[in-house]
Amino acid sequence: MSSSHIATILVSCPDRRGLVAALAQLLYGHGANILDADQHTDVAAGQFFQRIVFDTSELHTDRVVLERGIDEVAQRFSMRWRIHYASPTKRVALLVSRYDHCLYDLLLRKRAGELTCEIPVVISNHPDLADVAAQFNLPFHHLPVDPSERDAQEQALLAVLERERIDLVVLARYMQILSARVVNAFAERIINIHHSFLPAFVGSKPYHAAHERGVKLIGATAHYATSELDQGPIIEQDVTHIDHRDTVDDLIRKGRDLERVVLARAVRLHLENRVLVHGNRTVVFG
Amino acid sequence: MSSSHIATILVSCPDRRGLVAALAQLLYGHGANILDADQHTDVAAGQFFQRIVFDTSELHTDRVVLERGIDEVAQRFSMRWRIHYASPTKRVALLVSRYDHCLYDLLLRKRAGELTCEIPVVISNHPDLADVAAQFNLPFHHLPVDPSERDAQEQALLAVLERERIDLVVLARYMQILSARVVNAFAERIINIHHSFLPAFVGSKPYHAAHERGVKLIGATAHYATSELDQGPIIEQDVTHIDHRDTVDDLIRKGRDLERVVLARAVRLHLENRVLVHGNRTVVFG
Amino acid sequence: MSSSHIATILVSCPDRRGLVAALAQLLYGHGANILDADQHTDVAAGQFFQRIVFDTSELHTDRVVLERGIDEVAQRFSMRWRIHYASPTKRVALLVSRYDHCLYDLLLRKRAGELTCEIPVVISNHPDLADVAAQFNLPFHHLPVDPSERDAQEQALLAVLERERIDLVVLARYMQILSARVVNAFAERIINIHHSFLPAFVGSKPYHAAHERGVKLIGATAHYATSELDQGPIIEQDVTHIDHRDTVDDLIRKGRDLERVVLARAVRLHLENRVLVHGNRTVVFG
Amino acid sequence: MSSSHIATILVSCPDRRGLVAALAQLLYGHGANILDADQHTDVAAGQFFQRIVFDTSELHTDRVVLERGIDEVAQRFSMRWRIHYASPTKRVALLVSRYDHCLYDLLLRKRAGELTCEIPVVISNHPDLADVAAQFNLPFHHLPVDPSERDAQEQALLAVLERERIDLVVLARYMQILSARVVNAFAERIINIHHSFLPAFVGSKPYHAAHERGVKLIGATAHYATSELDQGPIIEQDVTHIDHRDTVDDLIRKGRDLERVVLARAVRLHLENRVLVHGNRTVVFG
Repeated sequence: MSSSHIATILVSCPDRRGLVAALAQLLYGHGANILDADQHTDVAAGQFFQRIVFDTSELHTDRVVLERGIDEVAQRFSMRWRIHYASPTKRVALLVSRYDHCLYDLLLRKRAGELTCEIPVVISNHPDLADVAAQFNLPFHHLPVDPSERDAQEQALLAVLERERIDLVVLARYMQILSARVVNAFAERIINIHHSFLPAFVGSKPYHAAHERGVKLIGATAHYATSELDQGPIIEQDVTHIDHRDTVDDLIRKGRDLERVVLARAVRLHLENRVLVHGNRTVVFG
Repeated sequence: MSSSHIATILVSCPDRRGLVAALAQLLYGHGANILDADQHTDVAAGQFFQRIVFDTSELHTDRVVLERGIDEVAQRFSMRWRIHYASPTKRVALLVSRYDHCLYDLLLRKRAGELTCEIPVVISNHPDLADVAAQFNLPFHHLPVDPSERDAQEQALLAVLERERIDLVVLARYMQILSARVVNAFAERIINIHHSFLPAFVGSKPYHAAHERGVKLIGATAHYATSELDQGPIIEQDVTHIDHRDTVDDLIRKGRDLERVVLARAVRLHLENRVLVHGNRTVVFG
Repeated sequence: MSSSHIATILVSCPDRRGLVAALAQLLYGHGANILDADQHTDVAAGQFFQRIVFDTSELHTDRVVLERGIDEVAQRFSMRWRIHYASPTKRVALLVSRYDHCLYDLLLRKRAGELTCEIPVVISNHPDLADVAAQFNLPFHHLPVDPSERDAQEQALLAVLERERIDLVVLARYMQILSARVVNAFAERIINIHHSFLPAFVGSKPYHAAHERGVKLIGATAHYATSELDQGPIIEQDVTHIDHRDTVDDLIRKGRDLERVVLARAVRLHLENRVLVHGNRTVVFG
Repeated sequence: MSSSHIATILVSCPDRRGLVAALAQLLYGHGANILDADQHTDVAAGQFFQRIVFDTSELHTDRVVLERGIDEVAQRFSMRWRIHYASPTKRVALLVSRYDHCLYDLLLRKRAGELTCEIPVVISNHPDLADVAAQFNLPFHHLPVDPSERDAQEQALLAVLERERIDLVVLARYMQILSARVVNAFAERIINIHHSFLPAFVGSKPYHAAHERGVKLIGATAHYATSELDQGPIIEQDVTHIDHRDTVDDLIRKGRDLERVVLARAVRLHLENRVLVHGNRTVVFG
């Protein structure tokens, strides 16, 4: 079984009887073999979520006919749905500034086969990390931000993203706030890493704020970017213990390990089509 | 929807196309509403596992007819399957010796509504914890072990378990090895808590062995008892950090917190029918 | 060596050369044997902290003379210092409302020898937990809060605390805000458990807020109570992972395990004189 | 205060009264300013351990006189002791085979300022990672192992280590067992990373063994190499949760994150002179 014949459906809809059977039956009827299925019912919200992974190698029909069939079931159950085929693989743009730890981490994981994607471009508002991109033979776009012409920079950014047919934007410690225009153009397709356990310590300098408050744990949060800063749906979080001996510099150092692991997990979950956004929360099929 | 109308099917079989649809369709056809379904395919072993939770309150048929239907599907796909109805609730026997922390923990969780079960009896080879059972208004059976008559004690133990129609035996730091006779009579229905991160430190005095070896973490392991000591399928494990300042007594103290949490989680997973044993490993639908 | 001959000095002062030697020499000169010494220099703040545990069984002098000696060194180095003798043991009041998990936990740890203290009284604004106190043969004071007479209740509370010569007040899920009068009377001697990872989700209903925000971790924080709600110096924090399947009830259940462990650790640290408050932060000699 | 004026003394000896004062007094008398002191008494073993960090910038005497003074105290108390000066910095050799994750991790941490050391050489029994060394402008020695001439390879290895005046050898997934000759030449100065939670799963292929046993956690262990494989004193360990969905490949992937973090922590602890070996255990002043 080649992994290029894999497809994934993500579904959300009001919870109703017969849903599971209807979708399973439809896929079976088209010759799809269900490899993995996970579901979740949010009883309080009356909402149903499902992720189905199936093999398309012995499909009796083609993608068009299959999708038409799914759409008929979807209309019957008022489903929102989307389908992702393993081929072609997703194209990811990495946006960075001066810190290299998340960039190196993602590039090394990509090379080790942990992340199934293309990374056609690294984009930065600073020139510092051009060398790292070069080491991995990746094009590096330096798009500096002139405060008086932020619009122009974002226009250039969007142009690159479009030209490279980018599916996912990863803000790998990109120290520049994106406008609503960019965020909305890539809704649920921009992942940011924030260096605190959100919602504690929103905004800039969270490690300084954590040190000031005297917390005993620091965290990192990967979330989809929305137009409201640090308020987007959370995909993944983790923390590490600290104590009174840790200076702000120690928090920054310990935080780096958290940031790269949490960001990498979130990117991987997204690439494997495991994340469904509902309101401002996520269902993550682990 | 009353929780007494819930049923759970656990299935394992060789992986085959059409499995998921067949079972979903059968349940739907009988008027069962699938509330939750989780599945796992062990690709290397070619084995399929599934857990389906469904509502039986609008079943068109009765339990007998439903189970006959399931059995037909099961034979078609060479499935091993079992069904659990929420009502009547499972009956649990707690076996203890002298340590009270796991006993208190389970009884308090039961009272707080965390564990859905009956606990009709506490059994011990020592008289020490009779008071604790009394505080919770539970019968306490003192079945002391005379080394020359271990058979007789086990006979008495089995008699109590049978008379009380026990579904699950929890060894809550019961410091006595059970013979193959008891273990086999309750296969996959005896949960033991071992105070180490198995397979490290099998046997008795694991905290002493951990201290001796100078490890930086200690653990606890909940597993189904088998006739081979400390070798049964693992349900749940966890660890906690220690350092050079911790004496054996500190390990014992820190270990108590682990033991009770790990044991309680395993018991809860079992009571919710989330554990499937395959060979010497478990599939735990979390 | 009897543990009743142990004493602990906690020191904080501006960092200066010769400090460590001066104090070590003084103790040695009086016949005290240093068993454990830990220190911390906050370089940014230029502040020095030290904890010294020593054996007094072969002291050449008495407590009065020793303390006079320490005071001389203290004045030379502008030290704030305090000394705690193992005997008599600290007297702890447990304040509770309706939740029993923290109360049981502390009482069982006390009985198991984990907490070296007296617990002469359990106080509550509700009658519900009188039985638990009775099981452990402890006096239970029911001090209900009439909103129009909160002052009177606090007066009664302070009277009990004074009569029982209480050294430490533990708010073991006491669901009532204490006024500045009480908080100031027991400055750095009231430990509260807040059921969130502070500073996230201050105020009431943190589990509901955490669920609403869609976080992937929940936490608990033990801190000294100050007149500003949920803002006191943090002693201990921990978190546990959650996911989209967890309802608010699940958060409450999982949170209980955190709360009791985090609170117990903080109480133990305080009882062992390991916590020094500096500004709004703590130095915790682990 | 320049960090090049820092020195660290590590001491172990039978526990005796007056120890702490004697050493503090001696250092003070020579004009050393104690910056940090941590100690530990293993009561069961009657053994005392101490780590003192001090500033030598206002020393009245020189290193020779200071060390002679320490030695006199040491003889009085039967101390084993060693002193480390911050300058010159330690020289570290990285030994690797084909896996690059630990190598990259250590080199990036070095570059980020997390590890205070020189890395004059990377040595491997395979040519694969020469490029990585080149990216960081480091000499790469390829010393292949011909099974019939293992002695010759180790001779060459020792020659490089000697020529480069290596203080610490880090086995960053070096897949070759070192003979007793090498191990003894660098006693307590070779750090290995084993990809299991030792003592579970000693030997090769621990992830396969962990999968086979069905554990719910996997671990990594950094330890000093001794002539007995996987039995050396443990410096640092950590674990991560896994479940039934994880294949051996997933364990390998998740394990990589553990290995690099655990190894880096151990190397950092060693470089900061925080580790004392006693018997087969370590005292780690955190």
